[in-house]
Amino acid sequence: MKFNPPTRILMGPGPSDAHPRVLNAMARPLIGHLDPAFVNMMDDVKSMVQKGFITKNNLTFVVSAPGSAGMETCLVNLLEPGDECIICINGVFGGRMVNIAERCGAKVHKVETPWGEVTKVAQVKKALKACPKPKLVALVHAETSTGALQPLEKISDLVHNAGSLLMVDAVTSFCGVPLMVDKWNIDAIYTGTQKCLSAPPGLSPVSFSKRAVKVLENRKTPVQSWFLDLNLVKNYWAGAKRAYHHTAPVSSIYALHEALSLVMEEGLEKRWKRHQEVHKYLKKNLEAMGFSFIVKPANRLPNLNAVQLPKGIKNEAKVRSQLLNDFNIEVGGGLGAFAGKIWRVGIMGESCTYNHVNALTGALKQIL
Amino acid sequence: MKFNPPTRILMGPGPSDAHPRVLNAMARPLIGHLDPAFVNMMDDVKSMVQKGFITKNNLTFVVSAPGSAGMETCLVNLLEPGDECIICINGVFGGRMVNIAERCGAKVHKVETPWGEVTKVAQVKKALKACPKPKLVALVHAETSTGALQPLEKISDLVHNAGSLLMVDAVTSFCGVPLMVDKWNIDAIYTGTQKCLSAPPGLSPVSFSKRAVKVLENRKTPVQSWFLDLNLVKNYWAGAKRAYHHTAPVSSIYALHEALSLVMEEGLEKRWKRHQEVHKYLKKNLEAMGFSFIVKPANRLPNLNAVQLPKGIKNEAKVRSQLLNDFNIEVGGGLGAFAGKIWRVGIMGESCTYNHVNALTGALKQIL
Repeated sequence: MKFNPPTRILMGPGPSDAHPRVLNAMARPLIGHLDPAFVNMMDDVKSMVQKGFITKNNLTFVVSAPGSAGMETCLVNLLEPGDECIICINGVFGGRMVNIAERCGAKVHKVETPWGEVTKVAQVKKALKACPKPKLVALVHAETSTGALQPLEKISDLVHNAGSLLMVDAVTSFCGVPLMVDKWNIDAIYTGTQKCLSAPPGLSPVSFSKRAVKVLENRKTPVQSWFLDLNLVKNYWAGAKRAYHHTAPVSSIYALHEALSLVMEEGLEKRWKRHQEVHKYLKKNLEAMGFSFIVKPANRLPNLNAVQLPKGIKNEAKVRSQLLNDFNIEVGGGLGAFAGKIWRVGIMGESCTYNHVNALTGALKQIL
Repeated sequence: MKFNPPTRILMGPGPSDAHPRVLNAMARPLIGHLDPAFVNMMDDVKSMVQKGFITKNNLTFVVSAPGSAGMETCLVNLLEPGDECIICINGVFGGRMVNIAERCGAKVHKVETPWGEVTKVAQVKKALKACPKPKLVALVHAETSTGALQPLEKISDLVHNAGSLLMVDAVTSFCGVPLMVDKWNIDAIYTGTQKCLSAPPGLSPVSFSKRAVKVLENRKTPVQSWFLDLNLVKNYWAGAKRAYHHTAPVSSIYALHEALSLVMEEGLEKRWKRHQEVHKYLKKNLEAMGFSFIVKPANRLPNLNAVQLPKGIKNEAKVRSQLLNDFNIEVGGGLGAFAGKIWRVGIMGESCTYNHVNALTGALKQIL
């Protein structure tokens, strides 16, 4: 069967546009997952993921499945049946963490915040009174469903004073906004490849602190997933012998290697700044057309812009279809409680350029 | 960082060589995982996977992770804590199924057979006496660690007479040897992309019969994995609304689509025949050099050839290194109990040509 994808301009919640170097990397010939040439390349990937997370964590590697599997990796490895944990929810992905933690048999204490806002230090303090020594406290750094950016430093102090682990979802923040795993004392973190990294979806870079590794080593029960069991996976990614666990997704790792190389060439700080600057321009353009932001400025994610539509637009899905069909531009609709109510406009990685904003703005002016 | 993979000739247990059309497919521009153009392509992938499995099963789709995750998908969805199951072990992958089933809280009855042999009907009959109504009976169709090809039809009758489900690992048999899911009444099956399909590793096509779907619908407990929970995944792959579950690995599915198209263009029967014919030629060449097959002819997999080395070769790893370093040819070593003792020579998909066999034979003659 023939398949020729249209050439889209990707400005939704991911995947974002990929650099031609990243796409072409996947056309390189396959080699074996135990080939010394592949294993050396994995070392480079690991070192670049460490730099992206700004961490020295030795247990830093890439889960062979999308970001949601990275989330599940963190939870199934750190939680055991009967463990207590605190999970902060201000959108779809906090809710997903609760769902997975419950499947691990953990007792979950929820800290709920209205969608579009962020969890406050006082809320975590209160939760730690009700549950003074949870195994872990989990938060979403960048809520992809609402565009809210969660401050983490003060909450991290609280969590560690309680002797707990801090787990963070960084799917939409990695390589787009400041994220400092060691400085902020994050114990378990996962991200995706298809957001600000601008690689194809399908892999989840993760990193675990020494504290998290100790918790893992002291488990009383086996990890419920074989595929995601870090005790096994780490022997392939970090073991001296590179013991076979599963067959690594060779071509996807080529693409990740190239996308990480592009990030390193640009430099993290310059990349963060680019996302801020293009965001300002997008904001000015969207507000001039009557769009309004869901999240207040202090907690607004620059790279994923959740906006309410101008009052005149009754059918948001129709306008999104017009953008896609007539202009090849993809923007995202709302998820969960926000379905049909908002748009999510992504300017992530390769999609974070003035040209992207101008294309979207121009098309919207023609449609509206 | 720069990475330029060497141009290997892949004759190990997978990945096998990929067709240039498959590699180039991944260089196509990314589109969104909810884009109508992508969703239509997924329908084509589903229909070609059905043809590859020779099944009409509606619940046929692709797990967004490698074959081992396909194995875990089958087990976590069909087993609940306390369930009894029978698992036949004649190599590494039967053992892996036991490991996962135990993590599901199931009581596993093992049917063990020496490595290199296949499970006999009488063994399953005996196991069904000790455990007359297991939830499922699982076998490996093509044991990648030993090169044994398991006959399934008679065992399938036994299993269904007991009112149980038949689960099959077809990672190394799919598109390489006859495999008929509907005719053989297989209830749950998974495969990988990097063997006889000759796509890059990273995805796992799966299929479930109506009986399996009924078992899934009548579960009393939640599936322990969120990422692999078919109740959720099926709404994305098969639901009318294509509900978002996780972000699909877009580029890997492009590659799978192209690899499946190549299989359909060749035709399954012609492809099976090609694997048989090239196997005969490989066998003649290897035996002439003093290699001997582990598996007896009746149960020998044509596409993955497990062989003992000629008596003169003391250090098998050294010869494999010479093949890789001096000739760019990869063959596989032994796994588990066979480590250091055998080679696994794959002629799968694009690697199944007379030219591949001649390259290997010639190189070996130069080395030995």
